[in-house]
Amino acid sequence: MELQRHSVAILCVLSCFLTLGMSYPDPRQREEFIKMEASMRIGGNVSLSPEEQQLDAHLSKLMLEEMAREDFLPALHFFKARPLIRSSPIYGLLQKMPKGAALHVHDFAMVDVEWLVRNVTYRPHCYICYTDDRSVRFYFSSGLPKPLSNCSTWTLLEQLRAKTVNVTDLDDSLMSYMTLWTLEDPELAYPSLTVVWKRFEQAFKATWGLVTYAPVFKDYFHEGLLQFYRDNILYVEVRALLPETYELDGSTHDTEWTMKTYQDTARQFVEENPDFFGARVIFTVNREIYPALLTKEVQKAMKLQVDFPETMAGFDLVGQEDTGRPLWEYKEALSLPAAQGSNLSYFFHAGETDLQGTKSDQNMLDALLFNTSRIGHGFALLRHPVAKMLSKMNAVPLEVCPISNQVLKLVKDLRNHPAAALMSEGHPLVISSDDPSMFGASGLSDDFYEAFVGFGGLSNHLGTLKELAMNSIRYSSLPPNLQEKAMALWQRKWNKFVTENL
Amino acid sequence: MELQRHSVAILCVLSCFLTLGMSYPDPRQREEFIKMEASMRIGGNVSLSPEEQQLDAHLSKLMLEEMAREDFLPALHFFKARPLIRSSPIYGLLQKMPKGAALHVHDFAMVDVEWLVRNVTYRPHCYICYTDDRSVRFYFSSGLPKPLSNCSTWTLLEQLRAKTVNVTDLDDSLMSYMTLWTLEDPELAYPSLTVVWKRFEQAFKATWGLVTYAPVFKDYFHEGLLQFYRDNILYVEVRALLPETYELDGSTHDTEWTMKTYQDTARQFVEENPDFFGARVIFTVNREIYPALLTKEVQKAMKLQVDFPETMAGFDLVGQEDTGRPLWEYKEALSLPAAQGSNLSYFFHAGETDLQGTKSDQNMLDALLFNTSRIGHGFALLRHPVAKMLSKMNAVPLEVCPISNQVLKLVKDLRNHPAAALMSEGHPLVISSDDPSMFGASGLSDDFYEAFVGFGGLSNHLGTLKELAMNSIRYSSLPPNLQEKAMALWQRKWNKFVTENL
Ligand SMILES: [Zn+2]
Ligand SMILES: [Zn+2]
Repeated sequence: MELQRHSVAILCVLSCFLTLGMSYPDPRQREEFIKMEASMRIGGNVSLSPEEQQLDAHLSKLMLEEMAREDFLPALHFFKARPLIRSSPIYGLLQKMPKGAALHVHDFAMVDVEWLVRNVTYRPHCYICYTDDRSVRFYFSSGLPKPLSNCSTWTLLEQLRAKTVNVTDLDDSLMSYMTLWTLEDPELAYPSLTVVWKRFEQAFKATWGLVTYAPVFKDYFHEGLLQFYRDNILYVEVRALLPETYELDGSTHDTEWTMKTYQDTARQFVEENPDFFGARVIFTVNREIYPALLTKEVQKAMKLQVDFPETMAGFDLVGQEDTGRPLWEYKEALSLPAAQGSNLSYFFHAGETDLQGTKSDQNMLDALLFNTSRIGHGFALLRHPVAKMLSKMNAVPLEVCPISNQVLKLVKDLRNHPAAALMSEGHPLVISSDDPSMFGASGLSDDFYEAFVGFGGLSNHLGTLKELAMNSIRYSSLPPNLQEKAMALWQRKWNKFVTENL
Repeated sequence: MELQRHSVAILCVLSCFLTLGMSYPDPRQREEFIKMEASMRIGGNVSLSPEEQQLDAHLSKLMLEEMAREDFLPALHFFKARPLIRSSPIYGLLQKMPKGAALHVHDFAMVDVEWLVRNVTYRPHCYICYTDDRSVRFYFSSGLPKPLSNCSTWTLLEQLRAKTVNVTDLDDSLMSYMTLWTLEDPELAYPSLTVVWKRFEQAFKATWGLVTYAPVFKDYFHEGLLQFYRDNILYVEVRALLPETYELDGSTHDTEWTMKTYQDTARQFVEENPDFFGARVIFTVNREIYPALLTKEVQKAMKLQVDFPETMAGFDLVGQEDTGRPLWEYKEALSLPAAQGSNLSYFFHAGETDLQGTKSDQNMLDALLFNTSRIGHGFALLRHPVAKMLSKMNAVPLEVCPISNQVLKLVKDLRNHPAAALMSEGHPLVISSDDPSMFGASGLSDDFYEAFVGFGGLSNHLGTLKELAMNSIRYSSLPPNLQEKAMALWQRKWNKFVTENL
């Protein structure tokens, strides 16, 4: 279907142009070309109701003002742009807008770190130690935890706070360990890709002891759903490591417990907020794992797919792509589900790189060959025309996370993000936020701002936003009957949003 | 031809993929896809002789080393990267390589400013004044020139130097007025697009009085050809304003004189250096001109085309695109040549913008509708799929100037320059340098470095370079018989280069 429409467009361009000859241009033909281009982009064929057209006219006035600024915000690093973005009228509108689903967010980067510090670290029995490489570790324990190598002795945070004169400063410093967000100049704080990824992994480790404490684990996910819900998102797919969680006495829970907790928490959240649609989980493994060991993980994923059909969405590999193993090294393990007739789906991170022609740069093609349902990032897709065609023809969408790509140093001025070109061609894609707590972003609104203003400027309009939101439901892992329900729920919210913002 | 090959590729991808089904990937099919992608990129179908293969193997080792650097050079601002680029073995090779033609360079930004200061400003009768906005103006005159508004009184440079203790410092400061090149942090020196363009125009004005002095005008062009020749370029197409030039006594020469001087100088240069092929001129007008006044300029261009068929290549509009008039406002004047049966060709600057959806963002489509022979920059082409298809199907190449786009703040990390994607698709393009003296670049070697390393990394190889060089002759304005001759000359130089660098 998609392909046919595209081919017709190609033929029409060709024949129209052939009639042009050497004469000067015909203004009607020019209009045709301009219309054709407008109709090709994401949202270009969305029809708008009279109310929507009215809102669209308002929005396009706001966009004109946004384009006239001397400091065009998506050209700035998000850390510098954030306060300006947050005060932009477009942001205000995007925040209220029902954005559909967040399809690419990671388990432990969903919740603002402020909540972790102000809520979680104030719970009893929370210990802290300071590592040699200027990070922290936390652990909840009824007694003194076992010493960690390369870490100071464990101190009860409650006691540390009692001895501290300026507790606010202490708490601020704790936050800074768990996020990349900083008021410093980001170019100086994170001068290279290696440095920023190292800090990124450190921040995950700092968070780890807090969020894998079983009672916090449950609350964290609940709080995460709440923060996304408040950002007007109705459904979330979480990339989750499904780690062992622990109790105060050091006893632990296995993967099934973790998965069940996700399922129960999501169900409970929907009960509390019936206009939220739910959450599913994509089980993820770090791409540093030895290929021989991945088989066990894939088997675990297939079992989870059988045991938790409601919540389990599929499988993925995570971690820095340039330094991790390429997908193709895992081909034996990744071929298992198809060979065994499992319906396990893949949602591979691929193409999160600027290093062209390397082995990891090949991951997008391999993800497609392994029949991935979506591609996480696909930042390098534009430089791979065959992979790009396969993605388009098979409607395998990219999960585009603009702020993540900028903070992790793939691109500076977001107008040059490849998604700007992909959106103009109507390539299947959704907007997501990857690790909002790491970047100081909230839910999807900041990323929607960058995408809406940065990836298209005046070429974007309400139809673009509408199709992006609908894409997020259309390309979710939900089965067709549930997609229909989610779409109906979104449509009701959308109509309300349009009416209330005229 | 081009189109057919492309369509076949599309069909093959589709059918190959349809046989894939739900099973795990077939390694042979994977290889097919990888090969197909490799063959689509620029140079992907160039066959290499055994000697070329040997050089290619060497080159790919050098590229591996270049990719392993912590500070990947095309990701840095050229002003910071230049010393590192110049000491890279890849640069050494690219300098020696016969690069074909430079198709996008401007009349008064061809020659290193050092030559202007050390040679031209030391000639007798050279006056200088300092403007209120911290620039300079020069003028050659037998007596004191007429005072300029907003400029100090004229001083004879000879006298100024006689009174100056540190003449080197003075000369360095004179150079700095005529180039954007600086040792300062470029982000601080040129914080915004507006600032950098203002400085750019100031530098042109500072140069103006030197290069429009008739004796210097001739020498400047000769020196420009020499610098390009030394950078192993065999043919140049100059965007030229064809200004009035003046003599010591204030008398002036008209456009015909200027054009004839270009022609004579080019002929003379070829006589002196028989392995240089020559130069042609693209007459340019600033896009600030009132539409009603453009008619006269287009008529002038048509007359030049008749009077100087050997040297006159065509017509173009120049200046900052975002703030200038869009092409479409000039449609009456630009339709004249076709209506009158003139064979005047167009070589429009278009798409040198990051502001999507604005009027000037439409210039690429309009340039194509006006049957442009090439597109200057086309930086925004990737965000305009219809214009992109027209450019591809009609083999209208882009003149890609990486350093110019970076210094003029369209893109920071050159890996995200749209040409990286276009090269991977085999889009017709050539590499050029726009205003090398403004950017501290020389000839084409710096831009070739950025393109070769930045636009493709390990995906690029000797075939890429070979096709880029051949493209520059193939897409020149030369008639077929001369193209053939130029190509034969280039091929001899190329063979010599390959043999000498094994
Ligand atoms: Zn991710
Ligand atoms: Zn130019």
